[in-house]
Amino acid sequence: MTDVIRDTIDRILTRVNAIGAGGPGFTRPSYSPLETEAHGVIEEEAGALGLGVTRDAGSNLFARLPGRDRSAPPLYIGSHLDTVPMGGAYDGVAGVAAAMALVAHFVERGETPPCDIVATVTRAEESVWFPVSYIGSRAALSRLTAEEMEARRADTGRTLADHMREEGGDPDRVLAGPGLPAATFLELHIEQGPLLDTAHEPFALIEGVRGGLRYRFAAIEGVWAHSGGAPRHLRSDAVFALADMISALDRDWAEMLEAGHDLAVTVGRVDAATDEHAFAKVPGRVGFCLDMRSIDPAVLDEMDRRLGRIVSRIEEARGVTFRLGPSSRSTPSALSKTLADRLEEAAGPLGFSPRRMVSGGGHDAAAFAAAGWTSGMVFIRNWDGSHNPDEGMDPADLADAVRCVAAAWADAQARPA
Amino acid sequence: MTDVIRDTIDRILTRVNAIGAGGPGFTRPSYSPLETEAHGVIEEEAGALGLGVTRDAGSNLFARLPGRDRSAPPLYIGSHLDTVPMGGAYDGVAGVAAAMALVAHFVERGETPPCDIVATVTRAEESVWFPVSYIGSRAALSRLTAEEMEARRADTGRTLADHMREEGGDPDRVLAGPGLPAATFLELHIEQGPLLDTAHEPFALIEGVRGGLRYRFAAIEGVWAHSGGAPRHLRSDAVFALADMISALDRDWAEMLEAGHDLAVTVGRVDAATDEHAFAKVPGRVGFCLDMRSIDPAVLDEMDRRLGRIVSRIEEARGVTFRLGPSSRSTPSALSKTLADRLEEAAGPLGFSPRRMVSGGGHDAAAFAAAGWTSGMVFIRNWDGSHNPDEGMDPADLADAVRCVAAAWADAQARPA
Repeated sequence: MTDVIRDTIDRILTRVNAIGAGGPGFTRPSYSPLETEAHGVIEEEAGALGLGVTRDAGSNLFARLPGRDRSAPPLYIGSHLDTVPMGGAYDGVAGVAAAMALVAHFVERGETPPCDIVATVTRAEESVWFPVSYIGSRAALSRLTAEEMEARRADTGRTLADHMREEGGDPDRVLAGPGLPAATFLELHIEQGPLLDTAHEPFALIEGVRGGLRYRFAAIEGVWAHSGGAPRHLRSDAVFALADMISALDRDWAEMLEAGHDLAVTVGRVDAATDEHAFAKVPGRVGFCLDMRSIDPAVLDEMDRRLGRIVSRIEEARGVTFRLGPSSRSTPSALSKTLADRLEEAAGPLGFSPRRMVSGGGHDAAAFAAAGWTSGMVFIRNWDGSHNPDEGMDPADLADAVRCVAAAWADAQARPA
Repeated sequence: MTDVIRDTIDRILTRVNAIGAGGPGFTRPSYSPLETEAHGVIEEEAGALGLGVTRDAGSNLFARLPGRDRSAPPLYIGSHLDTVPMGGAYDGVAGVAAAMALVAHFVERGETPPCDIVATVTRAEESVWFPVSYIGSRAALSRLTAEEMEARRADTGRTLADHMREEGGDPDRVLAGPGLPAATFLELHIEQGPLLDTAHEPFALIEGVRGGLRYRFAAIEGVWAHSGGAPRHLRSDAVFALADMISALDRDWAEMLEAGHDLAVTVGRVDAATDEHAFAKVPGRVGFCLDMRSIDPAVLDEMDRRLGRIVSRIEEARGVTFRLGPSSRSTPSALSKTLADRLEEAAGPLGFSPRRMVSGGGHDAAAFAAAGWTSGMVFIRNWDGSHNPDEGMDPADLADAVRCVAAAWADAQARPA
C-alpha cells in the first residue's frame, strides 16, 4: 500500500537536498539561485498535484488547495529552503515537505478541507546571510523596512534588495504592501535540541518562541603579565575573570530554572587565542559572546540586571574591565494555544499525546505571530544537533505529525455520520 | 663626574638595542646573524677595556678580567642577547650590560678582583625559537643532547645544529665536551613581574627558579548544540566545563598560598573561536593551555593530583571529556644561599636591604645550578610586564645592583686597612 504522506516527504527531501553548493552538508544561501532552484522543485510538485502556484513580491511561493469555504481565513503551512553554510538535511526543508505531504494527502483522497490550505515556501529565514530576521515571511507580511533592504549578504557584500530582485522579487512592492491579511500559519520544524529524542517522543506542540538578549562582541580587558612572574594578588587575568562570570551566570541560571522560569545561557565563542596569547602569559584580553534566551522578557531583564552586578563584582575583585559592547534583543513570541489545542485533540485518537514546549531558536512562525496571525509550530524529534551536516531526523516522525495536522483539518461536514 | 657603571649600562643598552629585526619592540632570534651582531658589540666593548675575549663551541662569548688568584674558581656574570619576537629592551641585555659595567668598574679603578671575573654572553636563552631550554648555557656546560641539536627553529624550520654552525659554533664539539668546570655564575635580570615595582624596591636576591608543569595542548570535548534548543540538563558545554576547571583551580591556588606554599596558575590561551564556534551554538570543543609553577616540586605533584580529581568531577557532572594531552615538567632549581648572603652583606652598607624571592620564569642561572655550580640571580625592578615592546626598567636600579656586586667582589686584601 502506498503512503502518499511518507512518499511525498521522502521525495521532496531527496529532490531539494540534491540542490546546493559543495559539501560537507547542505548550503543554499538566502536569495540565491540555489534557493530559487529549490523553490522550483516545489512549483513542479504542486503542478503535479494540480494546484495553482503564486509568488509574492518577496518571491515567496504559495501553492493553494481550495477549501470548502473559500472566504474562510486559509491555513498557510510551510517553512523555508535556505540553509546555513554547511547546514543539515532537515532545517527548513522538512517543514516544506510536510506542507506538500498534507496537500497531497487531501488531493489523493479527493477530500476538500474546510478552508484553503496554502503550502508556503518562505525565503531567507537563516539570518547568517543577511543580518535581518525572518526576511521572507516579513516580506509576505510587508513588515520589512527600507533600511533592512540595504542589508548586505555576508558572502557577496551585495544588498538584500539586489539579491531579492535577482531571484524574481520586487523590493519596492514589498515595501509598498499591503502584506497578506491575517490568517493561520503552521510550521513543522525539527526541534534542533535533544529533548524529544532523549524523552523518546516523536513530536511536540510549541507554545512560543524564546526571545533573546545577546552580547555578540563582548570582551574583558586585564593586564598582560609573565605567567611565572606575576603573583596572584597582582594579576588582572582576563580569562580567570571570564570563568568567574560564567560560573556566576551558571548559578543564576540553575536558580531561575528551579524557580520555574524558562532560560538558556550560552557562551558560544571565547577568543583568547590570538597571536598575543601564549601559554606563558597571563592573558590581558579575552573576547566572548553571550546569548541568553527566554520565553519571558522579564527573565531576560532580570538576567541583564544580574549580569551587571556580576560584572561590577568581578571588575572590583580582579582589576579587569568588561567591555560588553552593544546588546541586541529579540522579543519572545507567544504562539496560538487554540491552534495547539486543535492539534492535540486530533493527535489523541491517532495515539499521540505531544508535550507542549517552547522553541529556543527563532522561526518564521514568530514573524506571523508578531503580525497578529494565529500562528503555531510542531517540533519533530531530531538528533546530532542542527545547523551541521549530521543533523538527524526520522521522516516517519514527520509523517506522523502530518497525519495529525490532516486529522485536525479534516472537514467535519465531510466525515461519515 | 662620570659614572662608569651607569655609562657602560646606558651605552650597551643603546648599542645592542639598535640591532634587531623591524619593530614593534626588539627581535633578535636565537643563533641568528642579529644575535651574532649583538655579541660583536660586546666583543668590541671588551676589547676597549683590554680584556681577552674567547668563544666556546656553542658560540657563547667570554670576556675575562684576571683576578688576584688565577686558580680560584672565576665569577661568571652575564645573560643572553636573544629576544622573543617583538620583545622588550631589557630581558637579557640588561644582565650583559651589568656584567660589562662590573668589569669596567674594576678596570677604571685599576682594581684587581680576588678571582677572575668573566663577563658572559650566552646564546639562545629564549625557548620560543627552539623548543629546548637554556641552549647556550647548556652548550657551555656540555649538557645538550644530540637529539636537542636536531630541534628546529620555529621560523626557519632548520635545525639547531645548522644555525649554531652558521653563527660560528661547532655542534660536535659541544656534544663531545668537556663543558666548563664548576665555578660561580651570577645573572642580573629584570623581574618580569610587578612585585618589586609595587613594593618600591629596586632589586631583590633570588632563592630559586620555579619549576613548571604544563599542559600546552589540552582540550575539552563536549557536544555541539543549538543555543536555544538544548536545555541545561542535556548540555555538554565545553566552555562551561572549562570555567568550572578554572574556578576550581583558582580556589585550590588560593588555598595553597594561604598554607604558605609557592604557586602560580595560568591559562594563557583559550580557543573557542574556530570557524565551528558561533554565538548561537553550545560549544562542543575548547582548546586551552595550563601552566602551573612552583619552587616546590611537591606542590606541583599535589596540584596535578587535584587537577585529576577536578577533571573527573567535571566530566561526570557535565558529560564532557577532557583531553589534557602531553604534559611537560621543568624541575625547580634552588639557587645559592651563600651567594645571596654575600650580596646581601655587601648591599647593607650601600643602603639596600634586598628581599629574597623566587623566579617564576626560567633563566640561564637554573642551568648552571643544575650542573652543580654556585649559581645566583639578582632581579631588577621592572614594569609593564616583559616579553613585549613596553617592558620598562630604570638603568639606575641596575647600576645600584652592579655596585652591590662590585662591593661583594672587592678584594679584601686590596681594601685600605
